[in-house]
Amino acid sequence: MSETHYPDLERSRVRRLPERASRERAEVHAILDEGLVCHVGFATERGPVVIPTLYARDGERLYLHGSPASRMLRSLSRGIPVCITVTHVDGLVLARSAFHHSMNYRSAVLFGTAREVDDLAEKRRALERIVEHVVPGRTPDTRGPNEFEEKYTRVLAVEIDEASAKVRRAGPKDDDADLSLPHWAGVIPLRLAPGEPLPDDGLAPGISAPPYAERYRRPGW
Amino acid sequence: MSETHYPDLERSRVRRLPERASRERAEVHAILDEGLVCHVGFATERGPVVIPTLYARDGERLYLHGSPASRMLRSLSRGIPVCITVTHVDGLVLARSAFHHSMNYRSAVLFGTAREVDDLAEKRRALERIVEHVVPGRTPDTRGPNEFEEKYTRVLAVEIDEASAKVRRAGPKDDDADLSLPHWAGVIPLRLAPGEPLPDDGLAPGISAPPYAERYRRPGW
Repeated sequence: MSETHYPDLERSRVRRLPERASRERAEVHAILDEGLVCHVGFATERGPVVIPTLYARDGERLYLHGSPASRMLRSLSRGIPVCITVTHVDGLVLARSAFHHSMNYRSAVLFGTAREVDDLAEKRRALERIVEHVVPGRTPDTRGPNEFEEKYTRVLAVEIDEASAKVRRAGPKDDDADLSLPHWAGVIPLRLAPGEPLPDDGLAPGISAPPYAERYRRPGW
Repeated sequence: MSETHYPDLERSRVRRLPERASRERAEVHAILDEGLVCHVGFATERGPVVIPTLYARDGERLYLHGSPASRMLRSLSRGIPVCITVTHVDGLVLARSAFHHSMNYRSAVLFGTAREVDDLAEKRRALERIVEHVVPGRTPDTRGPNEFEEKYTRVLAVEIDEASAKVRRAGPKDDDADLSLPHWAGVIPLRLAPGEPLPDDGLAPGISAPPYAERYRRPGW
């Protein structure tokens, strides 16, 4: 097993436009670490299901969490294969021809099998990781989970068996014959942008928005 | 079949926090129409796969497109069941307790079966719909697809058999006992924001960014 790259297995091979594909661990990790929501795909008796959920990465492992009533977590805790995808939309690519319109994006597609986290110490670590993944710096500024809350939360760990990243980051690629057409071409950049934090009603007096909320940013921004 | 709601079938029933769930067609449509990327889940011999891709809605039908070499499109064109999910991240919900941290979001989960679009007139309509979905107003300002490009693009149609929306749009829900804790609580709003359009090198002289690029917006913004 390579330390820097995921194995090149058939299932996760990117066939289309392979010049945009990578099995480099660092590239997959960067996409995961910037993302907030992953899309989890798993098989059910009635067909595939894809559910969005928060997550956190810990090395080559992803943690998911939720209520014990969550059908997704119950299904996954049986140890069935799972595919987890994280996608960033970075821009819309407007070419002179309709055909060459495209999107700049970064996506990571992971394959693995989930296991339920029962060990309390690991569960605590996982839950803290998820809070810190979503809002870095938040943990010391919260009331930590009590015994009931820890029991009530279901945590799953997915070890990454295979993964690949796919990236497009370029302007339009028009045919030479189209370059002189009178149509604007270029990229409309897009990014997930934070707004002004909205304080909850009934905050204790004198509490203003902390820097991690006032200047919220994802890794890589 | 209800005109306003999707059927309440077991597979697409939202079990967790059902107060956030809806089968209303108008709500599902609004989430789809604002989205840019959907996550398509389908079964393969080696397990489930989830792939991000552009799309467009036409009534109760979604169009997907891509290269004939796309493994996803080839798999789906065999008429296998598919689950398609579109998610908007609207904000991070910071509660006083770690346990009640949450996310404001809107997601739509659809189930259906794909068919390949062979009819040239439908294919043209679908491709135009996809361009117009991504950049409304763009079509008249492009060179339309030629015969080769139409042939080279594979288009799939997915009729929506079942669907549900799930929405959280609220501040933190802390326990009463936590309300006086000295932690900031509230929402960090997030939205996909467009930047200044970046013109391609070699634009024909005198072509400035058109209004649909300069003031890019999604329906619902």
